[in-house]
Amino acid sequence: MKATVERATLLKCLAHVQSVVERRNTIPILSNVLIEARSDGLRLMATDLDLQIVETIPAQIDLNGATTASAHTLFDIVRKLPEGAQVELATSGDRMSVVANRARFSLATLKRDDFPVIAETELPTQFTLTAAALRELIDATRFAISTEETRYYLNGIYVHAPDGLNKLRAVATDGHRLARIELDLPEGAAGMPGVIVPRKCVAEVRKLIDELAADAPIEIALSTSKIRFRFSGEATLTSKLIDGTFPDYSRVIPTANDKRLVVDTRSLAEGVDRVAAIATTEKTRAVKLALSAGKVTLSVTSPENGTASEEVSADYASDAIEVGFNYRYLLDILGQVGSDSVDVHLADAAAPTLIRESDTSKALYVLMPMRV
Amino acid sequence: MKATVERATLLKCLAHVQSVVERRNTIPILSNVLIEARSDGLRLMATDLDLQIVETIPAQIDLNGATTASAHTLFDIVRKLPEGAQVELATSGDRMSVVANRARFSLATLKRDDFPVIAETELPTQFTLTAAALRELIDATRFAISTEETRYYLNGIYVHAPDGLNKLRAVATDGHRLARIELDLPEGAAGMPGVIVPRKCVAEVRKLIDELAADAPIEIALSTSKIRFRFSGEATLTSKLIDGTFPDYSRVIPTANDKRLVVDTRSLAEGVDRVAAIATTEKTRAVKLALSAGKVTLSVTSPENGTASEEVSADYASDAIEVGFNYRYLLDILGQVGSDSVDVHLADAAAPTLIRESDTSKALYVLMPMRV
Repeated sequence: MKATVERATLLKCLAHVQSVVERRNTIPILSNVLIEARSDGLRLMATDLDLQIVETIPAQIDLNGATTASAHTLFDIVRKLPEGAQVELATSGDRMSVVANRARFSLATLKRDDFPVIAETELPTQFTLTAAALRELIDATRFAISTEETRYYLNGIYVHAPDGLNKLRAVATDGHRLARIELDLPEGAAGMPGVIVPRKCVAEVRKLIDELAADAPIEIALSTSKIRFRFSGEATLTSKLIDGTFPDYSRVIPTANDKRLVVDTRSLAEGVDRVAAIATTEKTRAVKLALSAGKVTLSVTSPENGTASEEVSADYASDAIEVGFNYRYLLDILGQVGSDSVDVHLADAAAPTLIRESDTSKALYVLMPMRV
Repeated sequence: MKATVERATLLKCLAHVQSVVERRNTIPILSNVLIEARSDGLRLMATDLDLQIVETIPAQIDLNGATTASAHTLFDIVRKLPEGAQVELATSGDRMSVVANRARFSLATLKRDDFPVIAETELPTQFTLTAAALRELIDATRFAISTEETRYYLNGIYVHAPDGLNKLRAVATDGHRLARIELDLPEGAAGMPGVIVPRKCVAEVRKLIDELAADAPIEIALSTSKIRFRFSGEATLTSKLIDGTFPDYSRVIPTANDKRLVVDTRSLAEGVDRVAAIATTEKTRAVKLALSAGKVTLSVTSPENGTASEEVSADYASDAIEVGFNYRYLLDILGQVGSDSVDVHLADAAAPTLIRESDTSKALYVLMPMRV
């Protein structure tokens, strides 16, 4: 193998692929990136056995061939090469040389044949979302993904197309809060199976979106066991799906909460953040919302630090009630509400509370109260 | 106590004082800041028993008095208050209230009488340095301060005025490298005792300097056991000195190294940083410098990753030699060299190496080689 590539092009590609590579690996080759010089350019691939990324970049190819070398080391080397440098990659025996200007590296390699590749299978459902739509779908839900490994079926975003709704829905929950967003069903997604996209795949997709224009198309293809994201012809991410059953979340979404609070989103978020300043220990994560005519009074009590309270003007005309929430969960949700005011539908201090921008918003959030 | 103060003024002051307060304290009152409403303003004080900071800020004082409350919590609260807010602090029983706009906090307090204060003693040596001079003195040396607690006498910067030199000298070393800088002796420093200023005091002083103009005067006063820094009349930092004997460092500074390398500082630093990219484990921190006529060749060998080398043009006319250094230590030193080229004086692969900007530079660095 022998290829020459622009440092900036290689660096951007390595930034993508090394991100998939775990810092610690018991299987040595999983630390490596597969580098293939082919007639169509330089193809880089990395995997953690569940998630695989492939990207092809333009390069001058002098000799086809392939090898694998440490992804993090190669990334670090290329990062430190001078801007504008041309980087020559060449294999010789069990080494790969990296030469740029007066710097030369001779890197240990492992055989390309030992590099594990996720088997290509048929992905019958295929549709396209814009970068902006996929970002919206991820941002509205990913914060609610559970980190409890024992509830592995909650460790991702559940994407599905409910019967007869003509919507693509994404849902995530950790049992304490739930986030759901609906987009118009893209062409090709009708009849798709419900799939649980793992947290790490979501994170990598989200990073790649950040480099794209809002209207850049992302081709999504999936089966019941795999999902593939193809970014504007450059990078392709393929992930195994979580093999589990997402719980019937619709039971959790309240439909008859009769008390409605409408409040300025920013005032509420800033007020919650302020009163939470005294909640310095795990035990005191609860913020109490006391609702009465025309206002909501936020308060936190900390056995160590004292008490905090703040009054926020609000639209509220139902009976006075008090309800407690984990302030971090409430702030997570308010952070996703893009509108000036937020709609909160409550029943009582023990029932799930519904939060959304308005009756017509794409996203809705359910938050379980805490006893205060 | 009752006082009203501008949020921005209080925040800046709390940022200073909370920085001295340790995150974990076995003595509860050490987590607190002493707040005193006096006729001349609001005076805040924090301490860790070795280092104490006092700062007075303008405030409207309605009732003199004092209390103590959690420094980190109060800082966090004031940080989250809206910009431009007026903050009212008032005591009532064993609580202190903090009120701004519609937010109110009632904080637990501890008695001001229990707050430990470093005893004021006579500080016979008094002199003034500009912010720029003190910054130069700290930056040139602090990176070499030892972190080994058993060698407590190396856990700071040794400041002294050597006999007959008319210079103020600062030295730090961890046994592997040594940094020394000399400034013109300021008025009042002649005959001062040699003192070891602890790392934490150095760090806090350095932070406060960042807010000052280059020519702002800093009044320094010291005895054999204490040092005090007074910043433009606002903050005063008092620290105990390290009670130990700084080793006779002058023996370590080579005077007869006969091989001289002159090399572009940035090319050397960037080259070292690049070849070090393959040194991913603790064991491989050594970079080898092979000096021969007109050049220096940098190289690193890593059992896991392979090898790296880079040639850097240099002024060198002595016999060819090879010498190894810990690349991090070398980069620390090169990071302090402000000139385009750096002067390296070597004897052999085992002897201390002298590094400086030029023969006339204020700072010099000694680096012990590593076997490579």
